[in-house]
Amino acid sequence: MAPDSKSSENTLQAICYKRGSLQLLDQRKLPLETVYLPIQDATDGWNAIRDMVVRGAPAIAIAAALALAVEVANIKDFNGTVGEAASFLEMKLDYLVSSRPTAVNLSDAATKLKEIISKAVSSATVPENVFLTFIEAAEVMLEDDVASNKAIGSYGANFLQQQQKNPMRFSVLTHCNTGSLATAGYGTALGVIRALHAKGVLERAYCTETRPFNQGSRLTAFELVHEKIPATLIADSAAAALMKEGRVSAVIVGADRVASNGDTANKIGTYSLALCAMYHHIPFYVAAPLSSIDLSLSSGQEIIIEERSAKELLNTRGGLGEQVAASGISVWNPAFDVTPANLIAGIITEKGVITKSGDAFDIKDFVKKVGCNSSV
Amino acid sequence: MAPDSKSSENTLQAICYKRGSLQLLDQRKLPLETVYLPIQDATDGWNAIRDMVVRGAPAIAIAAALALAVEVANIKDFNGTVGEAASFLEMKLDYLVSSRPTAVNLSDAATKLKEIISKAVSSATVPENVFLTFIEAAEVMLEDDVASNKAIGSYGANFLQQQQKNPMRFSVLTHCNTGSLATAGYGTALGVIRALHAKGVLERAYCTETRPFNQGSRLTAFELVHEKIPATLIADSAAAALMKEGRVSAVIVGADRVASNGDTANKIGTYSLALCAMYHHIPFYVAAPLSSIDLSLSSGQEIIIEERSAKELLNTRGGLGEQVAASGISVWNPAFDVTPANLIAGIITEKGVITKSGDAFDIKDFVKKVGCNSSV
Repeated sequence: MAPDSKSSENTLQAICYKRGSLQLLDQRKLPLETVYLPIQDATDGWNAIRDMVVRGAPAIAIAAALALAVEVANIKDFNGTVGEAASFLEMKLDYLVSSRPTAVNLSDAATKLKEIISKAVSSATVPENVFLTFIEAAEVMLEDDVASNKAIGSYGANFLQQQQKNPMRFSVLTHCNTGSLATAGYGTALGVIRALHAKGVLERAYCTETRPFNQGSRLTAFELVHEKIPATLIADSAAAALMKEGRVSAVIVGADRVASNGDTANKIGTYSLALCAMYHHIPFYVAAPLSSIDLSLSSGQEIIIEERSAKELLNTRGGLGEQVAASGISVWNPAFDVTPANLIAGIITEKGVITKSGDAFDIKDFVKKVGCNSSV
Repeated sequence: MAPDSKSSENTLQAICYKRGSLQLLDQRKLPLETVYLPIQDATDGWNAIRDMVVRGAPAIAIAAALALAVEVANIKDFNGTVGEAASFLEMKLDYLVSSRPTAVNLSDAATKLKEIISKAVSSATVPENVFLTFIEAAEVMLEDDVASNKAIGSYGANFLQQQQKNPMRFSVLTHCNTGSLATAGYGTALGVIRALHAKGVLERAYCTETRPFNQGSRLTAFELVHEKIPATLIADSAAAALMKEGRVSAVIVGADRVASNGDTANKIGTYSLALCAMYHHIPFYVAAPLSSIDLSLSSGQEIIIEERSAKELLNTRGGLGEQVAASGISVWNPAFDVTPANLIAGIITEKGVITKSGDAFDIKDFVKKVGCNSSV
């Protein structure tokens, strides 16, 4: 199915939206098939997020908001008051948040949208006013995300060039997928890689397979080939050997949630990469929008880690494909791990790079200065 | 096909041999199918080793020797002298060594067998005498390997109990497959786990998937389930998170080659596990027969690392199955990495555990004391 979208750019699009219509690229089928699934309401959105049709912290927040925007855009005759329209939206948002509990962007987006709904109620005369305000807010999220990612890319690439001994030659290792497929476009960690490539200073991007769901070998590799960025795929466990060979100038990963001390929850395996980078004196960066920062968490210990189905390790294609592992074996399959702030050299945001003063990040101070964080 | 073997034990057998007949369990088909391939000569043996029908450093050395033993056992009428029989065997051994260049056991076994052949020449009156001496030597290798592994298991389990604060409760993480399927039986690192389990002090074994060939999820998990050892499978990249949760008392891995300073080449990902173990203050052990030690190498830098086909990452089932990764992506697929001796707490051998005196292993001294190493 062809994407029904306004965009004419030849870039990958995870989210194809126009008012009243949403299609999500089924990322479980990549790289072999490019299939878009129509999303007509919050239930479709919840299922798509839970089943990993769409993934990546920024993308799922936007997909959730747009799924609900499409649902209300197509309500012909809402049978209720302005207050009931607001309650309807709030209830649906709570439901959507339950699809992926670890991703802070999703719950933050819901909180932000609820505030907008709440304000809309006071001036609305008919329920449709509340719905329209919500729809417009969801659409702004979509547009803002691309702009935010481009800023992350630009700040990140400039910062890396300032830090590095050889500012003309970078080889960057990344994990999971943080590109166009994980966001509304351009990407976070992959946005920095994209920006380095655009400057002509990227020698090579290395992407991990990112077991067990293979977001690296399926999605990041797909994006890198699509964008003609020189790139090499490695097994997750080959990263340490690659670093030992001196082939990695920096590791840049995304984030599902950053605590106020800088501890970062990201795809399982991130912590291992950070430990290996530290041993090899390779700087390790997190690239994430400020909306990924959760100032309500004092440290990573407060982050709840989602455990996923054993099937992802037992079978291919995230559990849908053929059996690989021995029958009867128990499985531990955490979706994320937490990388402590002491292993992180900087957090690249759309408002600049947060670095340490002394041994610690002062993220609250940074957010206060730049005056923008969705969770405060 | 059912194994044609003398053994009546209900254990997994990678190598089923009786004089003149050899069958190897096709480990590429595990855990879904149990198929034995008949091996009639050195060429069959070379192909089986190269194609990973049989793998694991000790097993491939024995399989190679037995493949050639079967070939010569079935020669009805050798048309040549005693010297020509010896040359024939030597040439075939050199050929077999070329199937997996990193495994020192294989080249050491060949060297050892050549010495035996050489001695046999002086007393032989007909070529059949040389062949029979070779066949008997290959058969001794098979028997010795099981005895050696049982000794590794016993030394390892006792040593761990002496070292550990809680000698009654161990959770051990291992990598790749080092069990009955990688050896003539019992196993090396998995032999230690087996011995801990037999003593009733093993709480749980954790095995990694071991990408890209999945020796962990396919073979180790299969053995652990078969032996009813409490076991959990994790993604390679989840090991650091598992350690952080305090769920690992020790990491024990096998070795493809150990240099004289203790640097150890083993399956890709071993180095990463060692780095993560160090950070979490978890002891990291190598379990390997003395034949895996190559005293001719002063350090791991001299170990040549085999690079394997990109297909192993691009497709499932080691390259034979369906496509997973994006078309057109480059791949770096080293089969092994080298873990430096400074990350290794001890090397568990069939003659005892080699520990450090000061900061370094004195492996030469240990070998001299125990009076046994095939490569000296």
